[in-house]
Amino acid sequence: MQHTLPVRLVSECLGTLLLLCTVIGSGIMGVNLSQGNDAIALLANTLATVFGLFVLIELFGSVGGAHFNPVVTGVQVLLRRQPARELLPYMAAQLLGAWLGAVLANAMFDWPLFHTAQHVRTGAGVWLGEVVATAGLLLVIVLGQADRMSALVAAYIGAAYWFTSSTSFANPAAVFGRMFSDSFAGIAPGSAPAFVVAEALGGLLAVAVAVVFNRRLTA
Amino acid sequence: MQHTLPVRLVSECLGTLLLLCTVIGSGIMGVNLSQGNDAIALLANTLATVFGLFVLIELFGSVGGAHFNPVVTGVQVLLRRQPARELLPYMAAQLLGAWLGAVLANAMFDWPLFHTAQHVRTGAGVWLGEVVATAGLLLVIVLGQADRMSALVAAYIGAAYWFTSSTSFANPAAVFGRMFSDSFAGIAPGSAPAFVVAEALGGLLAVAVAVVFNRRLTA
Amino acid sequence: MQHTLPVRLVSECLGTLLLLCTVIGSGIMGVNLSQGNDAIALLANTLATVFGLFVLIELFGSVGGAHFNPVVTGVQVLLRRQPARELLPYMAAQLLGAWLGAVLANAMFDWPLFHTAQHVRTGAGVWLGEVVATAGLLLVIVLGQADRMSALVAAYIGAAYWFTSSTSFANPAAVFGRMFSDSFAGIAPGSAPAFVVAEALGGLLAVAVAVVFNRRLTA
Amino acid sequence: MQHTLPVRLVSECLGTLLLLCTVIGSGIMGVNLSQGNDAIALLANTLATVFGLFVLIELFGSVGGAHFNPVVTGVQVLLRRQPARELLPYMAAQLLGAWLGAVLANAMFDWPLFHTAQHVRTGAGVWLGEVVATAGLLLVIVLGQADRMSALVAAYIGAAYWFTSSTSFANPAAVFGRMFSDSFAGIAPGSAPAFVVAEALGGLLAVAVAVVFNRRLTA
Repeated sequence: MQHTLPVRLVSECLGTLLLLCTVIGSGIMGVNLSQGNDAIALLANTLATVFGLFVLIELFGSVGGAHFNPVVTGVQVLLRRQPARELLPYMAAQLLGAWLGAVLANAMFDWPLFHTAQHVRTGAGVWLGEVVATAGLLLVIVLGQADRMSALVAAYIGAAYWFTSSTSFANPAAVFGRMFSDSFAGIAPGSAPAFVVAEALGGLLAVAVAVVFNRRLTA
Repeated sequence: MQHTLPVRLVSECLGTLLLLCTVIGSGIMGVNLSQGNDAIALLANTLATVFGLFVLIELFGSVGGAHFNPVVTGVQVLLRRQPARELLPYMAAQLLGAWLGAVLANAMFDWPLFHTAQHVRTGAGVWLGEVVATAGLLLVIVLGQADRMSALVAAYIGAAYWFTSSTSFANPAAVFGRMFSDSFAGIAPGSAPAFVVAEALGGLLAVAVAVVFNRRLTA
Repeated sequence: MQHTLPVRLVSECLGTLLLLCTVIGSGIMGVNLSQGNDAIALLANTLATVFGLFVLIELFGSVGGAHFNPVVTGVQVLLRRQPARELLPYMAAQLLGAWLGAVLANAMFDWPLFHTAQHVRTGAGVWLGEVVATAGLLLVIVLGQADRMSALVAAYIGAAYWFTSSTSFANPAAVFGRMFSDSFAGIAPGSAPAFVVAEALGGLLAVAVAVVFNRRLTA
Repeated sequence: MQHTLPVRLVSECLGTLLLLCTVIGSGIMGVNLSQGNDAIALLANTLATVFGLFVLIELFGSVGGAHFNPVVTGVQVLLRRQPARELLPYMAAQLLGAWLGAVLANAMFDWPLFHTAQHVRTGAGVWLGEVVATAGLLLVIVLGQADRMSALVAAYIGAAYWFTSSTSFANPAAVFGRMFSDSFAGIAPGSAPAFVVAEALGGLLAVAVAVVFNRRLTA
């Protein structure tokens, strides 16, 4: 059964809130405890994100689709699996949730509720990393088996945190949310637009690969 | 088949004993080995708890429900899935098991069997963390698929150890047990009441969200 | 279909060989790389053992039962699930495999093929840890669902490496094999007999709990 | 349905590209962040590889078989599960993908696109490690259940990274790709031929064991 749009938007907003709260909160905790060893902080951030994504996709997948990510929704629209008129509401719900997740993480760790991150992330290598990270994520979503999607997406992001030079944001809502908490996991607002462009390119690349691949598969 | 109440109480007591023994024992081992690096100690504590919860819910879920947690039992009563007269016996079994688990961990590591923890955990941020941690746990339990509950709860707690500022006790029985072993994972008795209040609020919040969510889903 | 005894003995010998090679090899690698941080070495040792156990039980479970452990075989005999006359051959195959696994690990890391470990492990706390570790393992085996046994046993040992004071040998064949490689994971021969006694007690304790539990369950 | 050879070759090339990009990229990231602690770098490398292998086998297994490894294809040919005329095209696709994966990892991390690794890996112990690593991998593939192959192979490699002295390349295409990026995960070209010989021996050993084992099983 397809749920009504408002229910699905609440699902996307709440899920993205909890996802960003997980990513940012575990980033803060990692830095607080790891005595400057960023590898240990990123290991902790990775485990928390993998576990969190698995749970959130299990809980919200059957309600709103568990996109939590404007590129994912955009690709669904491009592939005609979702009506175009739902793109903007979905994006708004995701961005709102991402921002609320950052604020909640800030509140839990007694940080200023409203502030922005200083972590500059820029350069051709990092942007390429973000194209690869997002293309890979979308390939997983388009080609993977639906009933294993929670494990597939969680495992993919667990790998991509480490194998891409950008630590794999792969999600404009994640970029947006991470702008509002100055942790190890943050991104300076000035670095955000290029990340979003790279992610959109990655999404388009994945669609192109998947379309060619599927055409050959069924030829 | 529903088991008799005494069998279910033994199941809750033994399961909570083993859960707290896992949490506290791995906390002691983590501190013993990690040379003061709390991030590594918490990584170890996280893995042990995730693996342990998965196993304990698999073993005891079909017997006594594998609550191991008064807030979980309380929410079951609120949602009319369990008779109210079973709440106090369940809580007693859980608290007894938690205390025995702490004593067993102390015994294994040659610590004094009976003593209390010194770790003060207090402040608005930490209490908010505990509300979030418990609300999230109950959302998982109420909204998740029953046949995947062992993996869902284990993964959720694995994430929550890192993304909440309180390292996610999320369980008054865990608070109680951890009062009786002065490890990295401990909590000073004076910090316990506020944690329990925060956890009860988290449980109520989850019930409210779930009721609204389900009403909209089925509207 | 029940395989012939010789096939099952080869399965037990080869599986125990690979299990001990995994435990000891990853112990050596952990120490080689971790710069004296035993927590990191034990994390690596834990992951390797969890992954290895899962694979070995999947591969050999349907052939010889994937005991790899004299206490497990002994409990099967006690519970009349396996004829008593198979106990000694099974134990011999397991001990031979364990020793060969230690020799193979030594060979891979350019250590002397034949030598003994110096790591003294003794004291009431450690022995209690070994009773608890083995009792827990047997409870998992006796009470757990057969078709999830690979994940259950692997996860249990992953937790028990950290929550028991003995790091959970829980297996006389593992004690035997670890005597023959002087790594972080080793055990001095003089410490071995008490470990084996503790493991036997743990096995008996688990049988007692399981029998009582099952009787009440079916009463 | 069997896909056409060109589709399967694209699947092998793209999958091997992504596998090597995962292995090498996470190796670079691990070294960048771990402050010289190789155990932490290898833990990160292990997690990324385990997660990545699971996802890639899930995505590409039903298309081209998800070998990503000339020894695996060679064993399929030996066991008459794949026609011999496909061996060379498969190997070419795998080697091309491995090289492209190294180049992509270099590009993401702003390293020179085309260069070779300096990491000398040699000696009897390391070669034996590589025989064991490859024999184990092939045993898993030949004896494991097909529908759990993604988890089995991923878990096996996660263990083998730690229990073998060579950190388990176990794949001539991986050796080839890792020659072209001078990271922690690299291998000097001069060390490569002996690794490939050891891997071929490991594959033959696994075939011998599996044939004998299966003959006894079905005798």
